[in-house]
Amino acid sequence: MSLTCFDYARSHRDKFLEELKDFLRIPSVSTQVEHRSDMIRAAVWVRDQLLATGFPRAEVMPTRGHPIIYAEWLAAGPNKPTVLIYGHYDVQPPDPLELWHTPPFEPTIVDDSLFARGAADDKGQVFIHIKAIEAFQQTAGAPPVNIKMIIEGEEEIGSPSLDPFIREHKDLLRADVALISDSHILGKELPTIVYALRGMAYVEVEVTGPAGDLHSGIYGGAVHNPVNALCAMIAKLQDEQGRILIPGFYDKVRDLEPEERAEMAKIPFDREVWLAEAGVIREWGEPGYSIIERTTARPTLDVNGIWGGYIQPGAKTVLPSKAYAKISMRLVPDQSHEEISRLIADYFQKIAPPAVSVEVRDLHGGEGAMVRRDSAEMAAAFRAYAAAFGREPIFMREGGSIPVVAAFQKVLGIDTILMGFGLPDDNLHAPNEKFSVSNFHRGIQTSMYFLTNLAEL
Amino acid sequence: MSLTCFDYARSHRDKFLEELKDFLRIPSVSTQVEHRSDMIRAAVWVRDQLLATGFPRAEVMPTRGHPIIYAEWLAAGPNKPTVLIYGHYDVQPPDPLELWHTPPFEPTIVDDSLFARGAADDKGQVFIHIKAIEAFQQTAGAPPVNIKMIIEGEEEIGSPSLDPFIREHKDLLRADVALISDSHILGKELPTIVYALRGMAYVEVEVTGPAGDLHSGIYGGAVHNPVNALCAMIAKLQDEQGRILIPGFYDKVRDLEPEERAEMAKIPFDREVWLAEAGVIREWGEPGYSIIERTTARPTLDVNGIWGGYIQPGAKTVLPSKAYAKISMRLVPDQSHEEISRLIADYFQKIAPPAVSVEVRDLHGGEGAMVRRDSAEMAAAFRAYAAAFGREPIFMREGGSIPVVAAFQKVLGIDTILMGFGLPDDNLHAPNEKFSVSNFHRGIQTSMYFLTNLAEL
Repeated sequence: MSLTCFDYARSHRDKFLEELKDFLRIPSVSTQVEHRSDMIRAAVWVRDQLLATGFPRAEVMPTRGHPIIYAEWLAAGPNKPTVLIYGHYDVQPPDPLELWHTPPFEPTIVDDSLFARGAADDKGQVFIHIKAIEAFQQTAGAPPVNIKMIIEGEEEIGSPSLDPFIREHKDLLRADVALISDSHILGKELPTIVYALRGMAYVEVEVTGPAGDLHSGIYGGAVHNPVNALCAMIAKLQDEQGRILIPGFYDKVRDLEPEERAEMAKIPFDREVWLAEAGVIREWGEPGYSIIERTTARPTLDVNGIWGGYIQPGAKTVLPSKAYAKISMRLVPDQSHEEISRLIADYFQKIAPPAVSVEVRDLHGGEGAMVRRDSAEMAAAFRAYAAAFGREPIFMREGGSIPVVAAFQKVLGIDTILMGFGLPDDNLHAPNEKFSVSNFHRGIQTSMYFLTNLAEL
Repeated sequence: MSLTCFDYARSHRDKFLEELKDFLRIPSVSTQVEHRSDMIRAAVWVRDQLLATGFPRAEVMPTRGHPIIYAEWLAAGPNKPTVLIYGHYDVQPPDPLELWHTPPFEPTIVDDSLFARGAADDKGQVFIHIKAIEAFQQTAGAPPVNIKMIIEGEEEIGSPSLDPFIREHKDLLRADVALISDSHILGKELPTIVYALRGMAYVEVEVTGPAGDLHSGIYGGAVHNPVNALCAMIAKLQDEQGRILIPGFYDKVRDLEPEERAEMAKIPFDREVWLAEAGVIREWGEPGYSIIERTTARPTLDVNGIWGGYIQPGAKTVLPSKAYAKISMRLVPDQSHEEISRLIADYFQKIAPPAVSVEVRDLHGGEGAMVRRDSAEMAAAFRAYAAAFGREPIFMREGGSIPVVAAFQKVLGIDTILMGFGLPDDNLHAPNEKFSVSNFHRGIQTSMYFLTNLAEL
């Protein structure tokens, strides 16, 4: 059976690519109202693909925002595992348009790269699994395990409808393991499995000094300036090497295990290349941790924005009434974003100078997640990558967040396999987004191996 | 003689007011290009007033910017002192227009207030001396001392042409004492003489972290965030009570003399009223100094503006490349603004964390000034106020800057008498600027007494 599906995939490479191009031509930009009908068009296109692939059930389900596509094919029966495949059909805006070398919604292949908005994030990656399932359908009549798919249209705007949808359709979504392809591997010949993601607590701080702007020549020296006060408070959030000083911040942080650190040390890493990519002269951060550990396995704090007073050219001697900062913290398992938001808010109140007032608003939050590396499903994924890429994958953590992984853990009680096929230089959220054509085809192979391995558990 | 000029002034009050209104109708906004012809119109209007008042010489002299009016009337002869009267004919923009209760360039009298842009700052105040001289001319044929006048059109944009003009026309401007009416007294019945002004050093700080904006989820924790770094540096500029920590900052600061402090303690001051006017719950600042001392006689530091990263609504997880701050320091005699700018720039380089770079740019600077309180000219001013207001004036320092006072000291070697007639609530630089009609007339009296007293020295 598996041989046959691989044959099918090999002989239909061009067809798969042409279909992906059709998908990429739909400008499904979730954040722009003028693309609302394109969003519907993309959702219907995906549903029709799934129906054509043989899914007995595939629906465009409404939400308060853009619809979610749900599909299921449970032909393998109750003795076989059920996989819940997640992906998203919405894309980032293509701006700035003038920096694209080819039109963002006219997919163009140059050498091994397919250029288009959404090529890697996430249309190309979610399409991999649809084509793997098609290969099973065409050669064995059905996939070897039970499949559920959930493909949302709001990932690029923070997935506001997803969490309620998962909670509302808990039974419908019940599965043994989730599968997401919305991340990258370290290189074309360096398959990688991400097993941990960071969470985030994002707050906005508003400091008020005088009720209105004052003349600094008249009141300066006797009225506490809220910008100076805000800076003094921000300076107390971290020491000079980035260790966070908020009381209780590290209490729940799960320490890195020695084997994890050993595994991480295997990740090919060239400091000079990293410095050049980051655009800095030297690294910075918590002593005792490598750059990879600092950026993926340790919690961090960054001021993402700050403003107050006169910010136009020239000099104005204002003593401003207000100063603001946006501050985000990347969290690791088992930090709770609600708790961390509370801790930073309490800390700001504690360190606020008496002559100003401080308000801390919760802007956004998401839990980090960590999945077991020793599960049978992880082993199935490991062997699938090894078979498709001819090389064992490296385990790594990811510095960013995919909040749905935590939601699947919390609400459905299942782990997620993060089976990425992107590359680090795919230009996600930037002009000239691309997806490697060879990774696309290897991804389909990996998916087929994975589902086959799962069926044999 | 003096009786006669006072009679003339009393009987021409309405004429003086109507003429001032004509002056105020010219929208001589120096910072707005669309008012360039109004600037010329205002300069010519002033020159014609001076010629009509009997000045044998009154000229509109070109500069690289708006012209300066120079006039002289040296009829009193070499045995009498020469006074150099300074003022400015330019005004602040009237914006925001919607907050004015009467049109800014249609002068309107309500009770004792003349509402118009420039009424107090500075057209109404400079006009006082022109009308005092007219009273002398009409009753005695000429003023009792030699008069030179310099009236500029760039005060509201930082007087870029004034310093070069003074240096270039050192001989022309030679005088025994300068006289400026461009400040306020503490109340209608509280005449005040300002004898010290603060200087200013104004810098802009640019902190660079990575070469471009980065994703905080990918690089945060291993790349030093320039906003965090800037805040940490700003926090090191001052302690929590406002004492400035820049090495050498206080070295040249002239201490307050005990008699000065005793004199300052006489200034009527209601803390509750001050807090309400400042819009704060409590005062702040250097221990051991009163609020008046902190705001007028001690150097201060304020961040006037700060910005960096994402400052729009919502959350964006950027690790910015740049962070900026505008920082001004009010200086007291004998601090040099060049030296202070150098000290802060050196200090920033010293405290800059190794993973970011810092550039400090000098935006603007001016020296503070202090004039002798025991001179014969000051005694003449003291007696003039006492005669016109029926109450001895209080000596006070001013928190703001009038850089021309330092220029007159440095280049011409003369002290300035700051003979203000404004009131604290005149709404300078704000909507509904006004000037007290009774202060206008008392100002003319004070000017006549002063010139008379000077002639008798």
